[in-house]
Amino acid sequence: MELDTYSFEVSTDDRAELRRITDRVEGVIDESDASDGLVFVSTPHTTVALFTNEYEKRLTQDIIDFFAAYVPPEDGYLHDRHHVATETQPNAHAHIITSMVHTPVLAVLEDGTMQLGRWEDVLFFDLDGPSTRTVRVTILE
Amino acid sequence: MELDTYSFEVSTDDRAELRRITDRVEGVIDESDASDGLVFVSTPHTTVALFTNEYEKRLTQDIIDFFAAYVPPEDGYLHDRHHVATETQPNAHAHIITSMVHTPVLAVLEDGTMQLGRWEDVLFFDLDGPSTRTVRVTILE
Amino acid sequence: MELDTYSFEVSTDDRAELRRITDRVEGVIDESDASDGLVFVSTPHTTVALFTNEYEKRLTQDIIDFFAAYVPPEDGYLHDRHHVATETQPNAHAHIITSMVHTPVLAVLEDGTMQLGRWEDVLFFDLDGPSTRTVRVTILE
Repeated sequence: MELDTYSFEVSTDDRAELRRITDRVEGVIDESDASDGLVFVSTPHTTVALFTNEYEKRLTQDIIDFFAAYVPPEDGYLHDRHHVATETQPNAHAHIITSMVHTPVLAVLEDGTMQLGRWEDVLFFDLDGPSTRTVRVTILE
Repeated sequence: MELDTYSFEVSTDDRAELRRITDRVEGVIDESDASDGLVFVSTPHTTVALFTNEYEKRLTQDIIDFFAAYVPPEDGYLHDRHHVATETQPNAHAHIITSMVHTPVLAVLEDGTMQLGRWEDVLFFDLDGPSTRTVRVTILE
Repeated sequence: MELDTYSFEVSTDDRAELRRITDRVEGVIDESDASDGLVFVSTPHTTVALFTNEYEKRLTQDIIDFFAAYVPPEDGYLHDRHHVATETQPNAHAHIITSMVHTPVLAVLEDGTMQLGRWEDVLFFDLDGPSTRTVRVTILE
């Protein structure tokens, strides 16, 4: 098995932000010249989730709103006491959400193309922004 | 790395339906004659989830009921306005659920057998049926 | 592709318990002498979840508390009738939680090291303890 890892950065402006990064992953694949194998998209940040789903502007807002209601920020979490004490942004809710929303993203690569559905995109969900985040794409052949 | 992709269809009758597809995946593996590697079960549909869990009739109903209560269909989602306008079935809740319930399914293949637990099955969860859905099985060796 | 599977046991004392197992996985990798490939950490138990996240004592409690509140044990689930009848511990809630919290864990292996973030650990979440559980680590090269 051969491995090649590339990385790029994503800068976010809001506390919770959901972005499409399919193009950027495809750019990495083109650059790699890889043909057949597995594409592994990961992030070293435990308050960022990566998953595949439809990218539609209103659905994006629905997903952000759902998690904000279901796992509210600053809802008395014990972990946040550390953040309050160090004057850093409370993020316990972000860790809880990423335990549920899938990471990493895996996709089959065939003839240099990720096998995604017609309405399926690679999505990047920062739950603890704004920040500059690293995304890694490893191509396994 | 060698890749072989097979696909089959699953037809559902209800809006939310949870089925066991282990046999169908095993059928593909037998057909492939593969011995050792990785089995990757995916779907191009973003309102279908694939995951492994126990397949027990009452638990199946518990899972369907849980998600129907916590991510209710047609609960004022913005994305559904598009569906109402085009007279297609509202499915924002389905997209939210699949962001949480695992997809794809990966399993180690050893001596031609998927390494699953004794009570572990490959499950198919359509959240936006009824429909005819494609499931892809890629065997990587 | 070459596969090597190792396994170890984790014993839990509570009904819901969240442990760090990064060291144990790293121990397996060292033992294997593997260099580059994919690390696949799985469990045959469908009421145990494996995922990566920050391991911090208070966050661990927040995660346990969150799921205990949102998927409460013994909340009238149909599956639990079987457990009551056989005097075994009701665990429908455990199955529902594992359908959401990621399993298996996959990580890229480079130069014999799992590519995890600085604050990213491999976590083991038993939802139906106390028990002795098997964790499998398959290294694919």
